Amino acid sequence: MNAPHDLLARGKARLVPAAMLATLRQRFGERCSSATAVREQHGRDESPFPMTPPEVVVFCHSTKEVAEVVTLAAEHAVPVIPYGVGSSLEGHLLAVQGGVSIDLSGMTQIVRIQAEDLTVTVQAGVTREQLNQDLRDQGLFFPIDPGANATLGGMAATRASGTNAVRYGTMRENVLGLTVVTASGEVIRTGTRARKSSAGYDLTRLFIGSEGTLGVMTEVTLKLYPLPEAVSAAICHFPNIAGAVNATIQLIQMGVPIARCELLDVNAVRAVNAQSKLGLRESPMLLMEFHGSDAGVKEQAETVQQIAAELGGENFEWASTPEERTRLWTARHKAYFAGMSTNPGCRTVTTDTCVPISRLAEIIDASVSEADASGLPYYIVGHVGDGNFHLAYLVKEDDAAQRAVAEELSERMVQRAIALEGTCTGEHGIGLHKMGFLVDEAGAGAVEMMRTLKRALDPKNIMNPGKIFVL
Amino acid sequence: MNAPHDLLARGKARLVPAAMLATLRQRFGERCSSATAVREQHGRDESPFPMTPPEVVVFCHSTKEVAEVVTLAAEHAVPVIPYGVGSSLEGHLLAVQGGVSIDLSGMTQIVRIQAEDLTVTVQAGVTREQLNQDLRDQGLFFPIDPGANATLGGMAATRASGTNAVRYGTMRENVLGLTVVTASGEVIRTGTRARKSSAGYDLTRLFIGSEGTLGVMTEVTLKLYPLPEAVSAAICHFPNIAGAVNATIQLIQMGVPIARCELLDVNAVRAVNAQSKLGLRESPMLLMEFHGSDAGVKEQAETVQQIAAELGGENFEWASTPEERTRLWTARHKAYFAGMSTNPGCRTVTTDTCVPISRLAEIIDASVSEADASGLPYYIVGHVGDGNFHLAYLVKEDDAAQRAVAEELSERMVQRAIALEGTCTGEHGIGLHKMGFLVDEAGAGAVEMMRTLKRALDPKNIMNPGKIFVL
Repeated sequence: MNAPHDLLARGKARLVPAAMLATLRQRFGERCSSATAVREQHGRDESPFPMTPPEVVVFCHSTKEVAEVVTLAAEHAVPVIPYGVGSSLEGHLLAVQGGVSIDLSGMTQIVRIQAEDLTVTVQAGVTREQLNQDLRDQGLFFPIDPGANATLGGMAATRASGTNAVRYGTMRENVLGLTVVTASGEVIRTGTRARKSSAGYDLTRLFIGSEGTLGVMTEVTLKLYPLPEAVSAAICHFPNIAGAVNATIQLIQMGVPIARCELLDVNAVRAVNAQSKLGLRESPMLLMEFHGSDAGVKEQAETVQQIAAELGGENFEWASTPEERTRLWTARHKAYFAGMSTNPGCRTVTTDTCVPISRLAEIIDASVSEADASGLPYYIVGHVGDGNFHLAYLVKEDDAAQRAVAEELSERMVQRAIALEGTCTGEHGIGLHKMGFLVDEAGAGAVEMMRTLKRALDPKNIMNPGKIFVL
Repeated sequence: MNAPHDLLARGKARLVPAAMLATLRQRFGERCSSATAVREQHGRDESPFPMTPPEVVVFCHSTKEVAEVVTLAAEHAVPVIPYGVGSSLEGHLLAVQGGVSIDLSGMTQIVRIQAEDLTVTVQAGVTREQLNQDLRDQGLFFPIDPGANATLGGMAATRASGTNAVRYGTMRENVLGLTVVTASGEVIRTGTRARKSSAGYDLTRLFIGSEGTLGVMTEVTLKLYPLPEAVSAAICHFPNIAGAVNATIQLIQMGVPIARCELLDVNAVRAVNAQSKLGLRESPMLLMEFHGSDAGVKEQAETVQQIAAELGGENFEWASTPEERTRLWTARHKAYFAGMSTNPGCRTVTTDTCVPISRLAEIIDASVSEADASGLPYYIVGHVGDGNFHLAYLVKEDDAAQRAVAEELSERMVQRAIALEGTCTGEHGIGLHKMGFLVDEAGAGAVEMMRTLKRALDPKNIMNPGKIFVL
């Protein structure tokens, strides 16, 4: 495992030439900024890495503008980093080789909702909450919910998933097509609005999860879903974490079409109670949601209650109205910041392993034992229906020793996940943090193939360089 | 549109050097064959293209053997064409530049069923029927069903889908990982057994649908599903094709979780009646299947019956036992050969357009009018729940004029699909036939990006050269 400093030191900063800066200023006026505050805001994310600002930030409003900036950057071999809302957890946004941050947060146009086809095209800066607000009147929704109110472009870039993936899949399954500005500044379209296609290489999937290293996604075409006739949410408490996890394993193995199945450990429950006065019983709990017809939802709920009861689950609390559901989901959505607020001034080192469902109890059990033994504060939240969970260690901002302990625990957990045929990252991406793990997981040959693709599509290495791997 | 001869003429044959042939013979003995019958069998598929045999066929039994052959081919810059059961419809298997056909049909090992994780790993030569037979005792199944009893490797190579895709997705959504022999003969693994991952570029999805042009897939890890508690199939007749299509559009827009929704036009129904004495009423019909709990299936069936009735659907015929269902599905699965048998000695020119669901009635209507006006015999079958249908023109084997008419009609339909934001191929792939269409659909920039990827991963252009595009 490399210390964060090593990671940041890889790759030399490439300065933005004065001529390029002048051109950008002339073209974008106030939307081109080198102000310290702006650069610093764009030089960090939710990861524990120290701030590493870009040299300049350009706020783009259209694909054409992005293409202009990238064309210029390509000419001068200057790095380009796409920026949405800054909710990355793995250091994706840090300007480790300097360059230009392209801020897409102003690209908030919902280009076309085609309700009759269950598709929508949005600009990359649209957030998932904005999208769902716009869709509500049409009786439709977009299910991918990574917790943060991220942009759709950012979610595509990290192959995000979150709470609804167990039923609806991830960004991988829900993006139909993209508009991409390539590393030479050319604009291409990938995919169509058809729900499936066998027309050539799957460029859409190549860009999804590429973390800005192959091009800038400026528009995203997504699958939509009719709002279910009935939605019901429930929380269920368990005497121990094993009970909650084993209940999850059983209901997945039975094929119950549950929409959401989230775990909060006792530390996470305590944190959200403290922050939001939710008055939840302080024991490990599952938060579940069922989508379907009235009868279907009832049937799922009965099955799940039966499974849970056999594993010690009790105190089922149901919510069928949107208001009640919001209250229950508050617990989950606030967990990240609630967890941090238990230790003011701390940063989190967040793991993101995902394993085949039958191995989930095993890895959580071992990880909890190690975390408890370490004495570090931590909490667990998990998209356990997918076999994915996050153990977040809370470390003091400048405490190198604590940070090292957390990184060592994280590495052990990743090695365990890989041994169980799982992955080091279910949904956060590689970024700066997991480059070594990627090699452990995929093997040197597969990573070399990724490098070959990168060199072919970005020969000057300007697209978010130093992320996923170092060339 | 290029005549088939033009397509075949592209690219010069590259001879297998005597030294390489001698090495292959020594290594593989009788499993290396240059016999005319064997070469000819491997030099055609279900497409209407004239036979174009490879110079030699090697029957491989393991990833290691495939790697040996590819390593040798790479050394001598000789083309390599992976071969499963030969059910391609687009000329994928034709040795347009000569070389070695690697027959994987002997790689029929089911490597590992992990029922507790709903995953299986198979060698690439396992067929979908073999797999489902092996899974039945475990209460699991693999849903992708392209009609033909294709190999899982071939299905991955063409990004196949078929009758169950409307509910379960295509090969794109159902492959977790691959073992691939690269163009240099190296063996890599892509993906893990976790259900989702954000670890680097999606190599799995890059190989799926790459039609053998980037490497040879030798093992495939798949998602499995528990056999549904209840399955019910139904056929419903409509006075006209528009009624059947509009019923489909409505039920998709409503989000009915139908498992299969297939269209047969009156010509297809007549053909299967003639061949299999099914005694079906000779009018356009939908073949549907519902999966779920007893109550869920009943609910779906009621919704669909109501929608269908409003559009003139009648004579619902239900099947709940496996035997009854098999009888109904016989109609669909036999349609391809039944259609051909109505015109003995003919070949089919099969279209494969897929459009956003709301445009399906429009494109089918226009295509039927043109087909009727042409006087060519034809039939339609369609995975209409996905917006995908096949209009198969039946042309006399050596009748160039008929073939030209069919190709012209096909081209018009493709241009219409592209104008409606659909694709030229929902599931068959580009192969030799649709190279021009790929450019029309994806644009020159995107196709150039595909070429760049191909050059990067296969610098000697030995992996199934001359397919998807000509370098």
